[in-house]
Amino acid sequence: MGELRKRIRKTSLHARIMSAEDTVPFFKNGMDLGWSGFTPVGYPKVVPAALADHVEKNGLQGKMRFNLFIGASIGGEVEDRWASLQMTDKRWPYQTGKVIQKQVNDGTVRMGDKHLSLYAQDLAYGFYTKDNGGRFDLGLIEASGITEDGGIILAGSIGVAPEVIQNADKLIIEINTAIPSFEGLHDIVMTERPPFKKPYLVTRVDDRVGSLHVPCDPDKIVAIVESRMPDNGRPLSPPDEISEQIAANILDFFQFEVKAGRLPKNLLPLQSGVGNIANAVVGGMVKGPFANVKVWTEVLQDTMLDFFDSGKLDFASSTSLSLSVDGFKRLYADWEKYTSRVVLRPIQFSNHPEAIRRLGVIAMNTPVEFDIYGHANSTLVGGTRMINGIGGSGDFLRNAYLSIMHTPSTRPSKSDPTGITCVVPMVPHVDHTEHDLDVLVTEQGLADLRGLCPRERAKEIVDKCVHSDYKPIMQDYFERARRECFERNVGHEPHMLFKVFKMQQKLAEKGTMKIDNWD
Amino acid sequence: MGELRKRIRKTSLHARIMSAEDTVPFFKNGMDLGWSGFTPVGYPKVVPAALADHVEKNGLQGKMRFNLFIGASIGGEVEDRWASLQMTDKRWPYQTGKVIQKQVNDGTVRMGDKHLSLYAQDLAYGFYTKDNGGRFDLGLIEASGITEDGGIILAGSIGVAPEVIQNADKLIIEINTAIPSFEGLHDIVMTERPPFKKPYLVTRVDDRVGSLHVPCDPDKIVAIVESRMPDNGRPLSPPDEISEQIAANILDFFQFEVKAGRLPKNLLPLQSGVGNIANAVVGGMVKGPFANVKVWTEVLQDTMLDFFDSGKLDFASSTSLSLSVDGFKRLYADWEKYTSRVVLRPIQFSNHPEAIRRLGVIAMNTPVEFDIYGHANSTLVGGTRMINGIGGSGDFLRNAYLSIMHTPSTRPSKSDPTGITCVVPMVPHVDHTEHDLDVLVTEQGLADLRGLCPRERAKEIVDKCVHSDYKPIMQDYFERARRECFERNVGHEPHMLFKVFKMQQKLAEKGTMKIDNWD
Repeated sequence: MGELRKRIRKTSLHARIMSAEDTVPFFKNGMDLGWSGFTPVGYPKVVPAALADHVEKNGLQGKMRFNLFIGASIGGEVEDRWASLQMTDKRWPYQTGKVIQKQVNDGTVRMGDKHLSLYAQDLAYGFYTKDNGGRFDLGLIEASGITEDGGIILAGSIGVAPEVIQNADKLIIEINTAIPSFEGLHDIVMTERPPFKKPYLVTRVDDRVGSLHVPCDPDKIVAIVESRMPDNGRPLSPPDEISEQIAANILDFFQFEVKAGRLPKNLLPLQSGVGNIANAVVGGMVKGPFANVKVWTEVLQDTMLDFFDSGKLDFASSTSLSLSVDGFKRLYADWEKYTSRVVLRPIQFSNHPEAIRRLGVIAMNTPVEFDIYGHANSTLVGGTRMINGIGGSGDFLRNAYLSIMHTPSTRPSKSDPTGITCVVPMVPHVDHTEHDLDVLVTEQGLADLRGLCPRERAKEIVDKCVHSDYKPIMQDYFERARRECFERNVGHEPHMLFKVFKMQQKLAEKGTMKIDNWD
Repeated sequence: MGELRKRIRKTSLHARIMSAEDTVPFFKNGMDLGWSGFTPVGYPKVVPAALADHVEKNGLQGKMRFNLFIGASIGGEVEDRWASLQMTDKRWPYQTGKVIQKQVNDGTVRMGDKHLSLYAQDLAYGFYTKDNGGRFDLGLIEASGITEDGGIILAGSIGVAPEVIQNADKLIIEINTAIPSFEGLHDIVMTERPPFKKPYLVTRVDDRVGSLHVPCDPDKIVAIVESRMPDNGRPLSPPDEISEQIAANILDFFQFEVKAGRLPKNLLPLQSGVGNIANAVVGGMVKGPFANVKVWTEVLQDTMLDFFDSGKLDFASSTSLSLSVDGFKRLYADWEKYTSRVVLRPIQFSNHPEAIRRLGVIAMNTPVEFDIYGHANSTLVGGTRMINGIGGSGDFLRNAYLSIMHTPSTRPSKSDPTGITCVVPMVPHVDHTEHDLDVLVTEQGLADLRGLCPRERAKEIVDKCVHSDYKPIMQDYFERARRECFERNVGHEPHMLFKVFKMQQKLAEKGTMKIDNWD
């Protein structure tokens, strides 16, 4: 309790300290809730657990349902438990967890996803809660402290916490005393409404333009609860041979671009998604020839600590410290060294086109699949089944100096080790269009699409990216589509529209996308 | 000649004055050419005509082919004549004209399209001409004058003229003496390269942050040619009953949003595309209840002059004066009145996410079709045949405060007056995704998609936007897709993937999209 009181520097707020159980009456069925949290760090833990206990003990399953607006994913122990107890109705804009994912796809949970920078902005504009006056009934925020003026010092992620604090009628703050105070690590700007929005005056990754805490009317804080539950973080996906090869293809490309004078020697600020390819790329940078590198991204994973340790990474901006349990230990053990080179910002800022274009970010993300003309599917397997959500991929890919997507050329199906090709004639769902992507990479090679017309792109992608098991099928598709479309003068981007998902159909029926022909 | 010399205030450049015919030797087969011009105003006219004459007279068809990089469309008399003479190889990023369109779709012309703000930027970065050191061999610019320092005073459009002037090895300037000097009407900022890019410090539509002319090394100017050919401009598409109804739906929505406190009384800066719906919307604004309105867009059509005349439009920012012949007459007759309230900017600025988000633009554009989940096709009929290009629609729709797409609910086929539905289960080509669009409108009604999950969006769109001839077909599709996908827990966004283009197939075979059932 001593540490808790020390963290709440506005002493009049000590009177609002209560147990997690005591917050249960604040929650009513059907409420719009805004939470802190991002990939899964910095989300409230003890209050959601107490409410879940309450629902479970009292048999309130299906009678206490909520609309959850969070920055991105939160820990499965909260997400899936709430879903299991039928507590989740709407869920924006991203989720991970087996139970929640099933419910998103069986119609139980109403999920929506939007580019994170737009999502944060529209949240502040009140678009998602417009039937509720644009407000949240309740905001739930994990913080590491409160200033003398009631300003909220957030914890290991920012996400949409500022927008939630701004638009919530009431706030419950969880102060996490199991982690250090993160004061000094944040660069907070609030979402203003037009016509009164102002520029974000960053011209370098390490510029600071905001404040160290989120301003907050202390009268909105109805409860402060101590939490001693550390973030479980995100375990690291180890790189495999294929992702190492993809990373090597990308690093070769960077060297080529530097030589051609289109990239400076220290590159431009890197954005790298999550997953084993992203980790292999950062692993490659650790051993690679580029120094004085900067990172402008939305998640920092453990490999970034290695990157700092290598002396080659100068500075990193993110919205979340998406570290593993071991990663957090490393961070806390060498706090000054790492945190003097890191800043965390709200997603409406970290993912804002204004910053991404001005800084000239190099964006790298993994899709489910891409097609021969350069459209990519990031969210819906088979065009219908949601995995996690679009996240920030569209913010970065649309606005980057170089937009790169990387994927293995194939994935195994149940019966065939290369039963699924990740390069298809037409993706069954488009999250990123041909107008957005510059470079596509698999372990087979790298296709540089800049300046190419669709037919040239198809040739380049099939030549460079497709696995040998699928090359004849894809070449045949393109040749036939070309011939058929040219005959009717409709061949800017040739397709056989009425056969285009034949490979997906074979997968559904036979467990492999290897079709015999396109007849 | 007196007027021409007067327009060239840097007198040492008078020595470069020559006839259009004399510029022919500057052109070599295979060159990368950058031109001024946008929707079709401000493009070079006499030099392209002289070169076409040369090709025609000397039987050089197919032996003098060029890669053309322009802001958007140019006049058909140049575009189609060059295409007819097989002079056009690559063509970026937008075209109008029967001959060029045919060639784009039969494989003769290699066209590519990208969001205009990105296109301009990537042009400056040298991405489209990277095999040529990122340069243009020759830039062709229509201007209305040259300053004492060699600065280029552009004419009725800006487009990518600054980027062309910046990156061209040699420049031919057409000074158009049939139009007034446009000095004072332009707000020019150049495209800087990262890591040295700076903010665009506009916070109001009528802020000015750039210069009145494009800086230019006079040694690059190899020829100056007088032109007396006025812009033919863009004839106005008159509104019809359907577009009037769509406009009425949109104006009702604006009033609703003002009442709800989500829009200020004078709205937010409007972006409106071209075509009869756009003109009906502006027509509605002229008679409507909103005053002190501002416009931040890429094209100003004749209806904007009516809007100014009504006293309700305060200021307009654009990249082009896309007026009709009569519209230009009105402009020139009342030059001071109109031009004191208009500014023209480069497309990398007019279409930049930074400005569009900060100002909170309301974007309105017409697609070919949209689907029940909120994806839109703006470019490829049937997924393969290019019409014009994506233009700036994606720049505005992705970044707007409100993203609106409007279309008639049906269009006639050859045999059926409602043979084509513009609301389909899945668009066969995606230019704008479900993550980008807020509001869809037809003459049937308006669907507000903000905060809805895909299945809710489908219900709203089918209820509000679909024509009665297609409502049962679409309802049946959605219900069956929902049932089938929920059974397999794959129904976040339900589809029957292997039947999804059945309506398009019927159109191809029977001339109507009215199918009997989804079996």
